[in-house]
Amino acid sequence: MRARVIVRLKPAVLDPQGEAVERALRGLGFSGVKNVRVGKLVELEVAGDAGLVKAELAAMADKLLANPVIEDYQVEVAG
Amino acid sequence: MRARVIVRLKPAVLDPQGEAVERALRGLGFSGVKNVRVGKLVELEVAGDAGLVKAELAAMADKLLANPVIEDYQVEVAG
Repeated sequence: MRARVIVRLKPAVLDPQGEAVERALRGLGFSGVKNVRVGKLVELEVAGDAGLVKAELAAMADKLLANPVIEDYQVEVAG
Repeated sequence: MRARVIVRLKPAVLDPQGEAVERALRGLGFSGVKNVRVGKLVELEVAGDAGLVKAELAAMADKLLANPVIEDYQVEVAG
């Protein structure tokens, strides 16, 4: 089944990449832009049923995909 | 309004980062994993109403956030 893990920096953590993107967008004339944050999106296929897959994805994020000190993650299973 | 731009490598483009993640997940015992792809998620706030904002986000992706040669993007506006 197709699934995705979204990994974001925690709100309290500075995001220099997001700030750079924000400055660049303003420089291009997009003046209404603010609070830009850049995260990672890991999309994958996992075998198993939805309930187990969610737990397995959380385990993957805990062990490999996210750094729990500075990042939060969110797991989504799509049918 | 809060919005997000998801940037993914085109399906035909090799994703070495995704392959590395896939190997690492298998090495950790997650044997049912396949077709791992890693993308970018840009979350931001944009001023304006939903219709205009979508067009503006597409322009941002075209000009800065995505590389149209190797990447596709998808725009989502959240209320």
